[in-house]
Formats: sequence, structure tokens, C-alpha cells
Amino acid sequence: MRNYVIKGNICYSRTRKELCIVENGYVVCRDGKSAGVYELLPESYEAFPCYNYENKIVIPGLVDLHVHAPQYPFRGLGMDQELIDWLNTHTFVEEAKYADLDYAGRAYDIFAEDLRNSATTRACVFGTIHADATLLLMEKLENAGITAYVGKVNMDRNSPKCLCEESAERSAGDTQRWLHDSRNFKHVMPILTPRFTPSCTDELLEKLSELQKRYHLPVQSHLSENLGEIAWVKELCPGTEFYGESYDRYGLFGNSCPAVMAHCVHSGEAEMDLMKRRGVFVAHCPESNANLVSGAAPVKLYLERGIRAGLGTDIAAGSSLSIFKAMAAAVQCSKLRWRLYDQSVAPLTVEEVFYLATKGGGEFFGKAGSFEEGYEFDAVVMDDSSIRSPRELRVRERLERLIYLAEDRHIAAKFIGGREIFRER
Amino acid sequence: MRNYVIKGNICYSRTRKELCIVENGYVVCRDGKSAGVYELLPESYEAFPCYNYENKIVIPGLVDLHVHAPQYPFRGLGMDQELIDWLNTHTFVEEAKYADLDYAGRAYDIFAEDLRNSATTRACVFGTIHADATLLLMEKLENAGITAYVGKVNMDRNSPKCLCEESAERSAGDTQRWLHDSRNFKHVMPILTPRFTPSCTDELLEKLSELQKRYHLPVQSHLSENLGEIAWVKELCPGTEFYGESYDRYGLFGNSCPAVMAHCVHSGEAEMDLMKRRGVFVAHCPESNANLVSGAAPVKLYLERGIRAGLGTDIAAGSSLSIFKAMAAAVQCSKLRWRLYDQSVAPLTVEEVFYLATKGGGEFFGKAGSFEEGYEFDAVVMDDSSIRSPRELRVRERLERLIYLAEDRHIAAKFIGGREIFRER
Repeated sequence: MRNYVIKGNICYSRTRKELCIVENGYVVCRDGKSAGVYELLPESYEAFPCYNYENKIVIPGLVDLHVHAPQYPFRGLGMDQELIDWLNTHTFVEEAKYADLDYAGRAYDIFAEDLRNSATTRACVFGTIHADATLLLMEKLENAGITAYVGKVNMDRNSPKCLCEESAERSAGDTQRWLHDSRNFKHVMPILTPRFTPSCTDELLEKLSELQKRYHLPVQSHLSENLGEIAWVKELCPGTEFYGESYDRYGLFGNSCPAVMAHCVHSGEAEMDLMKRRGVFVAHCPESNANLVSGAAPVKLYLERGIRAGLGTDIAAGSSLSIFKAMAAAVQCSKLRWRLYDQSVAPLTVEEVFYLATKGGGEFFGKAGSFEEGYEFDAVVMDDSSIRSPRELRVRERLERLIYLAEDRHIAAKFIGGREIFRER
Repeated sequence: MRNYVIKGNICYSRTRKELCIVENGYVVCRDGKSAGVYELLPESYEAFPCYNYENKIVIPGLVDLHVHAPQYPFRGLGMDQELIDWLNTHTFVEEAKYADLDYAGRAYDIFAEDLRNSATTRACVFGTIHADATLLLMEKLENAGITAYVGKVNMDRNSPKCLCEESAERSAGDTQRWLHDSRNFKHVMPILTPRFTPSCTDELLEKLSELQKRYHLPVQSHLSENLGEIAWVKELCPGTEFYGESYDRYGLFGNSCPAVMAHCVHSGEAEMDLMKRRGVFVAHCPESNANLVSGAAPVKLYLERGIRAGLGTDIAAGSSLSIFKAMAAAVQCSKLRWRLYDQSVAPLTVEEVFYLATKGGGEFFGKAGSFEEGYEFDAVVMDDSSIRSPRELRVRERLERLIYLAEDRHIAAKFIGGREIFRER
């Protein structure tokens, strides 16, 4: 059933500054896409079934541009190190377990179910190097109804033996097989996923570049997260001026297909220029950047310069799958960055983080993340009645409050691309 | 029923560095106080009834050293300004409503019920200038079973008319009447509450000093939160070297009875010295300090210098009543402070924030916040089984994870001073 109407307090972004609110309004789903938001329902849609969520808040689905599914088992743990040590001590140890399909199945069941129960409708997801486990992850996300890009990770250097592919050729070959096997999902799509430059040889990036061109695949990776990492990349890649070039020289930096780069905490002028020219998306992961002591990305600056950006949870360097929490953290980190470090970049506003969490990240998926006409119909209905106040609150206030206080239990219904994920639970 | 045993995974702090964990252990409540933690239950307690929380996590109740009850209705709202503008635009407008006892009753019902359902067992609570509304708040907290210090707020200058007491004499007189009327609560005690120096005349502080001496009352207020505020205090109090002196010269800075000062984000050497000498408690409110762009307090430094400290939610500059969230925010803000501002003060550890949230703040109430023998029996039982993982986790890991992920729904039982607040809900 792809044609219906939702009645409620409809909130969505047109731009990062323009938050549209239609109280007691209607948003129409026609063939899985938005047919617009209305104060009064047009006659032509009166025959559509109407879900009445009067007094609830209806927002576009939230978008998680960066999340590591295999790290979900240790979310909230081990945040006592910086990036490289944290990878070696906590992350690689966990990811190695996904050679075992039984463990992978149990882990990804939990991840897929929790993601289904969250307000996230679309996500860019890292798997591990294991093609079979990554296919299992894709199957579980497909069954959960989530729309996602999922990547089998590539890494062939500077990694523990159990997590280091034996050659660039083998890594590319496994990737090609995985691409072949992942053709038949409806809502889950493959994305090229070189882990990050330190764990990928030039030869591997070259081979991924070929695959990228042949299959027109988008790319996800990490960029300029941590100062030690950046210095390491400079050593590993003589001849590059900045970290982003290490991807760009292989055509993996938004050159022909979309690319999303997580973090960009310490990107300099030249890197920002190139991100803008290439249309690279920044996946801003504020909680992760605090937890791993990476810093605070100047995401307001990215927005002002017209660099595309959205939010990521970065499980498990981020502890929570909630993009609401990522929104609050983004505002808070931008304020601390302003106070403690650089008063030339203003803090983010509520309008801006809501934009980042919806349309900003959604556009990596094409027309998604808004209720404007023609956008994919991703909708989340929030029932905030248990967040009690003796005050009458305006809808704009209730939306702001949800950014700080929403939990999964406040989600009353969820739709993705017009598909009903759950309703009135 | 004040004699019983709780069986479970018992976790508590002895010092800020020493986190004690007894898996499948016992903590004994005798006459409302802890009779110690045991691996094997001593024979002498075998006759006590035993609540079996095997496999759950049992921690001392959490302590909120700074929370504004009347601001609870606008939690999560209006965080677009710094302190003084925020007070005038959002806070004072709300607090003025508590002249109306009907509004106060509805608001404080919600606050008391939500606090009851949280992991907080003890709190230092601000009311408003209104004695009657503050008595109502005390009554509701008493009925909810919370142990608390609650203060009628004093303010006689630089405040909007509706929230400015007409004279120091009137303010002190109302305070005295309120002290008289609040004698009969069992678990809720009065605390002197000059709002902060900018809103209290010298004459008022003088009069509060007299009340303090006569009734041996503890004191709560705000200190060195925001740079503009600090400059203003300097103007208002010629002759003082630093903000804390404006309280100290009236004996309201821990001179004879305990004092707790919220924030201390920008305290200098002389202020720190005096806090240490006077035994003043710092209520560290990390989320508030980010939300109002105040900064990040060097709380690790306070601990290293032997300054007493605990955590505060600072509703509504903080959005959540959860001291778990305050713990996570404290670690995260200390990391960003280190990365962005001052690498001479290390980030907080898990052990340290757990200490701050329990024994560090608890000691403002005497022997509270630990399970060491003789401490008030405040206990919270956490059921984290819904935070699923395919991994076997150690208790230490599960405790760390709760700091980042706990929600009220994970609380299985709560006891304060031996009193059962709820159990197996």
C-alpha cells in the first residue's frame, strides 16, 4: 500500500535555514514518494486512506551517514583511547569475529532490529572485510525494511593478520564476488568501502577505482579524523598535499559517483575546496569525535561553504544509534568548539542540525530527507506525550525538545520509501 | 522494613580511582545503612530477607548536586543564548509562574514523579522565590521518597519585577517563615539559596548570613559559570578579588556549614584555593555548560587538588534529569576541553565520573553515595538485559556501557536510606 495520507504536525527542512512546520496538516504518499504537504487536504487525495496522527509530530526519516554495524556489540565500551590505539585494541579484535557467520548472524540480528526500532530510515553502513558476513548483514537490513548502502570493507595493510586481506588482488576479487552476490536486494545497495588510507595499499585503491568505474558505485571512507592519523597518511602517501588526495588520485573522492567521508575534523582549506568541487558528503559524527578525543569538526563552516553534509552515529566510537542524540551532540560540540577553540565558526542552530539529520544526509540517497514533492516518502511519527510539561508548547518547541530528549519509545510509526515499517506499536 | 540483603553484581567507589566490583555478591541494609558488601553472605545476615537481583547491576543511588525544579517544564528548549540572556528570555519568565500555586502543583507533580523514576536518590534542588510553591515542591519530593535539600530562592536585584523580592528584609522574612514551615519533612531539608551574586544585594546576603548562623543551614548557589557573569560580579562587588569572595565575605562559602556551588567553569587559582580550604563542593554540570556555551570546567584538576565535587543536571540549562547522561557528558566535555583548549588537564576516566556521580556528590549529604559500611543505604538496581550484545560482557564493561546508554526503563529497583522507592516494576 503505497498511497496514503498522514495527518499530524508536519515538520521538514527546505534548506538549512528554513524549517517548515504545518500544524494539523497533511503529507501525502503517492507511489512511495511525497506528493506534498498541505494545510487542507486536496480533493484529489481524499480517497487515499488517512493515518490520523493528530497532535503528534511527523518528520522525515533520519539519515545515518556513517555507522559500523560489526562494532555494535561493544557500543558504549572502551572509550579510553584515541583512534589508532582504539582500532587495534577494541575494534579490530571485534571485527575479526565476523569470519564466523554464526557470530555475525547473532550480532547483525541485534543491529538490524535496533536500527528498525530507531528513527533512522536510511544509513551508510560499514561491514567487515568478510564478504559472506556482509551479505548476511545486507539480508538482515533488507528484512528489517531499512534502505541502506552497505559496504564490504577493504584493508590489505597495517592491520592485524586476522583482519588483513592477503593481497590487493584477493581483496578486489572478494569485492567483485560480493558485488555480484548483492545484486538482488531491493532496498539495500552495495557501496565501495576502503576502510581508510592507512589500511589500503595504492594497488588496492587502484583496483577499487576500476570496480568503481565499471559498476558506477558510490564510495564511503574516513577522512581527517585524528591528528596522528593525518600525519601517518602524509608519511604513507608521499606526493599528496592533504589526506583527501589519497582517495582523489584514484577517483574515489566523488569524482564520478557520490562519496561520503566520515569525520573531516581537521580538514584544511585545500581539502575543503576539493570536497566542495567534488560534491563529497561529510558524515559529521560529533559524539565519536568527542569520545575518541579527535576534536570537533567545523561543520557550520562546511554548510556555509556549500559543502554537503549530514550526521553519522559512528557506532561504536559513538555509543548510540540515535540520530536525535547525534543532533544534540552536534549542537553541543559546535558550542564548545566556539567557546574553547575558534570564535570564527558560529555554533549550529536547531534548524541546521535538523537539516543535517534529514535532508542534508538524505541527499546522498538522491531525493530523500524532506517532504517536498517528489522526495522519497520516509516518515517518522513522534509521540512526545510522555515528555510532560504543564506548559502548552508550540510544535517548533516540541521538535526542539525531541532533539534533546527523544528515545526510541517515542516513535509511534515509521515509513521508508512509502513502505510501512511499523505503526501504532 | 529497613533490614534486608540485595544480591547482585555490586559496584561502588571507594575513591575516585578505586571502583570496587563484587560479582554475584551481597550488600546488606541494616537500619537504613549499609552493613557492607560481601562475596559470601555472613551468617549473621542470613535471616534478613534477600532480594535476588542475580545478574543485574547494583550501584549506589546517583546524586544530583544542582537542579532547578521550576525549570523542568522547558527542559530541552531555548538553548540558543548564553547565561544572562537565557535567564531573562526563558528562565525568569517560567519561574514567575510559580506565584500561581495551581501551576506550581502541576509542574512539581511531574518533576517529582520523573525524579522518582530516575536513578537519582539525593538532590540539591532550587525552587523559586515563592515560599508557598517551594513548600509544595518539598511536600511532593517527600511523598516521592527522594532525599533532598530544597531551597527557596532569594533575589532582590537585577531581576524582572515579577521575580524580584521587594526588599532584602522581605526576602529574609519570607525565608525565615519558609524555614519554620519546612521543619516537619523527614527526608527533605531546607538549604539557603541566594540565586547568584548578581541578583542579591549585599544587604540580602548579610541577612542570609545571619539565618545561616542561627539555623546552621547549608548553602547552594552559582559560581563562575560564564565570562560575562564573572565580569558583572566584578563590577557589582568592588573590593573582591574573585567571584567566590562575594559569598565568602558573608560566610556563605562553606565557612561553617557545607556549601555547594554550581559550575565553577572559570575559577582561577585564588578561587580554587579558597574552595579547597572551605571544603566547598563543586556541582559540575557539563551538559549545561555546553548548552549555554559557558565552557568546560576543569573538574579533573579539582579532583587532583582535593576539591570536593559531584555532578549536576542543571535542569533546564541541562536537558535531562539523568545523572547517567551527566556522567557521559562529563567525560566527553573533559576530552574536548583537553583536545581544544588545555592539554595540562587530562580527560576524566570512567572510574572518576562514577565516583563524582555517587560518592563525590553524596558526601554533601554526609555518608552517602557508597556501599562502604555505615553509608546511607541508597541503591539502584540496573537491568541492562535489553541492551543486547552477542558478546559476554564483564560487569565492569556493563557498568561503563550504562554510563553511555542507560535510560530510566533500565532501572529495576530503587532504595533510599533503606526505604524501598520501587521494586520490580
